[in-house]
Amino acid sequence: MTAEENKIKIIPLGGLGAIGNHLTVFEYKDEIIIVDAGIMFPDEDVPGVDFLIPDFTYLEKNKKKIKAIIITHGHEDHIGAVPFLLQKVNAPVYGTNLTLGFIQNKLDERPPKNDPKLIPISPRETVKTDAFTMEFIRINHSIVDGISVAITTDIGTIIHSGDFKIDYSPLDGQVIDLARFAEYGESGVLLLMSDSTNAMVKGYSRSESSLKEGLLDIFSSAKGRIIVASFASNIHRIQQVLDAAYKYNRKIALSGISIEKNFAIASDLGYLTYKKELIIDIKKTSGFPDKKIVVICTGSQGEPMSALSRMANATHKHIQISDKDTIVISASVIPGKEKTVSNVVDSLLKKGAEVYYDKEDIHATGHATEEELKLMITLTKPKFFMPIHGEYKHLKAHAKIAESLKIKTSRIMIAENGDILELNRNIFKKTDKLTLSKVFVEGSETGDIESEIIKDRQSMSTEGIIFITAIRTGTVLRDPLVITARGFIGFTNKKVLKSIKDTAATEIDKLLLDGMNDEELIITLKKKLKKHIFGLTRRSPIIEINIIEV
Amino acid sequence: MTAEENKIKIIPLGGLGAIGNHLTVFEYKDEIIIVDAGIMFPDEDVPGVDFLIPDFTYLEKNKKKIKAIIITHGHEDHIGAVPFLLQKVNAPVYGTNLTLGFIQNKLDERPPKNDPKLIPISPRETVKTDAFTMEFIRINHSIVDGISVAITTDIGTIIHSGDFKIDYSPLDGQVIDLARFAEYGESGVLLLMSDSTNAMVKGYSRSESSLKEGLLDIFSSAKGRIIVASFASNIHRIQQVLDAAYKYNRKIALSGISIEKNFAIASDLGYLTYKKELIIDIKKTSGFPDKKIVVICTGSQGEPMSALSRMANATHKHIQISDKDTIVISASVIPGKEKTVSNVVDSLLKKGAEVYYDKEDIHATGHATEEELKLMITLTKPKFFMPIHGEYKHLKAHAKIAESLKIKTSRIMIAENGDILELNRNIFKKTDKLTLSKVFVEGSETGDIESEIIKDRQSMSTEGIIFITAIRTGTVLRDPLVITARGFIGFTNKKVLKSIKDTAATEIDKLLLDGMNDEELIITLKKKLKKHIFGLTRRSPIIEINIIEV
Repeated sequence: MTAEENKIKIIPLGGLGAIGNHLTVFEYKDEIIIVDAGIMFPDEDVPGVDFLIPDFTYLEKNKKKIKAIIITHGHEDHIGAVPFLLQKVNAPVYGTNLTLGFIQNKLDERPPKNDPKLIPISPRETVKTDAFTMEFIRINHSIVDGISVAITTDIGTIIHSGDFKIDYSPLDGQVIDLARFAEYGESGVLLLMSDSTNAMVKGYSRSESSLKEGLLDIFSSAKGRIIVASFASNIHRIQQVLDAAYKYNRKIALSGISIEKNFAIASDLGYLTYKKELIIDIKKTSGFPDKKIVVICTGSQGEPMSALSRMANATHKHIQISDKDTIVISASVIPGKEKTVSNVVDSLLKKGAEVYYDKEDIHATGHATEEELKLMITLTKPKFFMPIHGEYKHLKAHAKIAESLKIKTSRIMIAENGDILELNRNIFKKTDKLTLSKVFVEGSETGDIESEIIKDRQSMSTEGIIFITAIRTGTVLRDPLVITARGFIGFTNKKVLKSIKDTAATEIDKLLLDGMNDEELIITLKKKLKKHIFGLTRRSPIIEINIIEV
Repeated sequence: MTAEENKIKIIPLGGLGAIGNHLTVFEYKDEIIIVDAGIMFPDEDVPGVDFLIPDFTYLEKNKKKIKAIIITHGHEDHIGAVPFLLQKVNAPVYGTNLTLGFIQNKLDERPPKNDPKLIPISPRETVKTDAFTMEFIRINHSIVDGISVAITTDIGTIIHSGDFKIDYSPLDGQVIDLARFAEYGESGVLLLMSDSTNAMVKGYSRSESSLKEGLLDIFSSAKGRIIVASFASNIHRIQQVLDAAYKYNRKIALSGISIEKNFAIASDLGYLTYKKELIIDIKKTSGFPDKKIVVICTGSQGEPMSALSRMANATHKHIQISDKDTIVISASVIPGKEKTVSNVVDSLLKKGAEVYYDKEDIHATGHATEEELKLMITLTKPKFFMPIHGEYKHLKAHAKIAESLKIKTSRIMIAENGDILELNRNIFKKTDKLTLSKVFVEGSETGDIESEIIKDRQSMSTEGIIFITAIRTGTVLRDPLVITARGFIGFTNKKVLKSIKDTAATEIDKLLLDGMNDEELIITLKKKLKKHIFGLTRRSPIIEINIIEV
C-alpha cells in the first residue's frame, strides 16, 4: 500500500446539523465498520411521518465491505434504525447487554431477512477485523451500559465518544473509565469525535444520584398518588423511583407501552433491583389507597397518545387525575416539544394536581457540559478534533471549546452529514460529499421526505384541495361538472365557489373545442384555475382534475 | 335599584388559559365597556389559519349597551381584533396616541362599515359614561404609551392592569405611575385584575435602559454589518438601536413590512428621535461599507416569510449573509417558536455570521415578574384578586403570589374565557358560562376552528386523501372507476393500490345492484373502505366519493 492509499474514510450519515439519525461509517483497506444506526423525529413540517432513518444507499453499494455494526447505547437515536439497516446489509451487531436487549426487541417487531448476529461486548473488551481494532470504553449517560469506542488502525486511533457525560457517582457505581481515555491520550489519539449536545451549557452536569434528595422530598410530602413521567429508557431514573417507592411503602404500577417493554427488558437482564411484590398491575391501583401508589408512565414530552397525555385529557382507562395527585415530569424538554409539554402541564394543573416539571432537582442531563467536554479533550489529547451529535450551533460551540484548549482551528473539522472525510497521520480533510435523501418511515412504508406525498400534505394542511371531475363525450363537456373541496376556506364563500365553477366550466368547454387532449387540458386548466383562485382568495389549494371519457 | 341588582358583570372573552385574544367585558346598569380586543396566534395543530379572534356573539347581542372600547396598548394581542369588532359593533375606541396610530393602520386595511371614532386619551385622564368612570394610569411595557385602567362604579373600583412591568428607568423617562396605583389602594380597590405572563419568573425584571451597554458592546466590536431583529412594535428597542447606530456612525436600513410600517407610524407621532439622514433604503445598503450599516428587521421569532428568515435561507433580495455580519436577535422566544428560531440561528451560523440570541443582556421582558407583581398587589390592596393574561399555570402561580401577600384564597378568582362573573361589594363569583367558539381568520374569510375545514386539514396533513369517482348508468357501474390520492402513503405500494381499487369496484357493483341510492351508497362504501384501508396500511385517509349518473 502506498502512502497515498494510507488513509481512513469517515462518512457521517447522520448526527450532524441535527440531533438524531446517528450513524458514522469508517472505511479502511476495503473494510467498513459502522458506529450507531439511529432514528430521528422529524420537525413539525413533515406531518404524518413516524420517524426518519439515515440514507443507507452508500452502505448498500458497499455491503460486502461491512464487518461490524457497533452500537454505543440503547437510545432510539442510536439503535432505532438497526432493523432497517439489517434489511439492507448483513453484519454482526456489537453492543452491551442492555443495548442488545433493546435492539432484539426492535428486531422482533421488524425481523430482517437473515438471522441477525447480535454479539454482546463489555467495556475494555476488544474486537478485531483485518483493518480495525475496536475497544469499548465505559461512559455515563442517561441510559445505563453505554460505551465509547476507540478505533485503532495502523494509521492511528480514533475515539468516537458516543453520547456521554461524566458522573462520579452514577447509581450503579459504574463510573466512566477516565483511566482508559487517559491511557489512549498518553499513547496518542489521532482523532477525537465527541458529543456536542450540551456544548452550549456551562459548567458541569449534575450526577444522577444527586436527584435522590429532590425525589424523596416529593415522596415525603405527597398526599395521594405520585405519577412520574420519564424517558422509558432511563433505567437509573426508574430505579430511583423504585427505591423511593420502596422507602415510602408504595406500590408501583407502569403505564405506557414503551415503559412496560423497557422495564421488562431491563428487569430480565438484571439492570433493575426491586422486590417483585413492589410491582402491581395498573388496573389494580384503584384497590389501594392513593397514598400507597406510584405510577411510572410515558409522556414526558407531551406525546399525544402517551399515558400522561391521556391522564391530562381524562382519556386514561385507569387513572383519573384529581387534586390529590402529585405529578413529576422527570425529564428535560426536547427542543420543539416545549408547547406540547406546557399544554399537558396546564391540563394537569387545571385538574388540581401538584405538578413538578422543568426543575433542576428532578432531572439530570445525560450529556457532558462544557467543563466535562474539556476534560475529555484534555485526557485524550487528540491531534484532530471533530464535534459530533448536535445542531450546527452545538458543533460550533464545541469547536470553540476545543480551540480554547489550544487545538488549532485547522485541525478541527465541522462536517455535514454525507461529507466524505479522509484522515491520515497528518491531514484530515473533506474530499467529496454524498447526496443523501431524507428517508422517512410511516407504518410499513418508507419514502423520501422530498417526495410529492409530503409536499402535498404540507400544501393541503394550509391551503386545502379542490377536486374537479369533468365528463366528456368526444369534445362535448357533459353534465354534471363535479367540483368538491376539502380544507379549502374559499368554498365557505358562495360567490367564490360559483366563480370557480363557472370559470372551470367555461375553460373546459373552450379547451375541448380547441381539440386539446386530456393531458394538455388538465395542465392548462390547472394553471388558469390556480391563478383565478389565488386572485379570489389569496390561497393556493392543490387542484386535482379528472377528465373522464364516456 | 335593589341590592340584588347592584353588581357588575365581568366576562373575559379572551386572555385566560392561553396568552392572546385579550378582551374583557364589564357590564353594569345596562352599559358595557370593553377592555382590549386582540388576536391570538394558533398552535401548530390548526394549520393554514392566519390568527384567532375572540367570539363576539355576546357583544353583537348586546351591541346597544356598548359605550366604550378601551385599548391598553398597541400590541397585536390587544388591538388586532379591533377591526373585526368594529364590523359587528359601533362604539368609540379609546387609547393613547401610539396605540390609536397602530389601530388606524389596521382599520385602513379592513375598514369598518361605520366611520370609527378613535378618541385619544392620556394617562391620568378620565372618561365617563352613565355607569362607569375610567381613569387611565401609565405603566411600562415592551411597547411605549401603555396604560392600566381604573374602572369605578358606585360599587367600587376595579383596576385592570393591561400588560405591564415596572421600569424605574424606561428609555423615555415615563415611569409607571406608582403614586396613582397607591392612591387607588388608599381609597379602596374592590378588584385587581393583573397581568400573569411572568408570574412564574422570580425576582425583578431588568430595565429597558440596562440593555444599552450590551448593545454598545456588540456595536463596538462588530467588524461588518449589524443586523438586529426585534418585535416590530418595540419602539424603545428600535430607539436604542438608532442611538447606537448614531454613536458608531452607521446608517440604518429597515427590512420587513411590519417594522417599516410601525417605524413610520411611531416616527410620525414623535415616538422616535433620530436624524433623518441616518435612515437609508435597504436597496442602497450595498453602496456603503459594511461597517457603516445597521439593518433593523423582522423575524425575531423565525417567522418563515420574515426578513431574517429570508436572510438565513439566502432568499433576501438585498442582504446576503457572510462571515463578516453580526446578527442580534433582541427578543425572547415565544413558547412554541423555539425550534423555528433555533433553525434560523443555525442557518445564520452556517454562513459564518456572529449571532447573538437568547441572551440576557440583549433583551428585557415587558412583563412584571414575581416581585413587581407583589408591588402591584401591595400598592392597590385589592379586596378581590383575579390573575389575567396567562396560561393556567401562570394564573395559578399569580394566585399563589397573591396568597403569599395574605389575600384570602376565597377572594382569588381563577376564571376561564366565557365565564360570567358577578362582583358586588362582598361577593365575587361565577354565575354562568358562555359557550365560546374559537374563531379563526384566514385571508378575507372567518370561520370556526372546530369546523370540518380545519379537521380535514389535520387529517389530510397526516393521513392524506383518496378520491373516488364512479360513473353509473342506472344501476350499472361504468368504466373507468377513477381512484386518485394525495398525501396517502399507501398508494406508493402497488399491492395496496390494487386491493383498494378492487374492493371499491366490487362494493360499488354490489351496492348498485342492491338498489342503494347514491347518498346511502357513499356512506356505506366509505365505511367499508375505511376499514379495509386501515387494515392494509394503519392509516385513515379522508375518502371522498362522487357517483355520477350519465
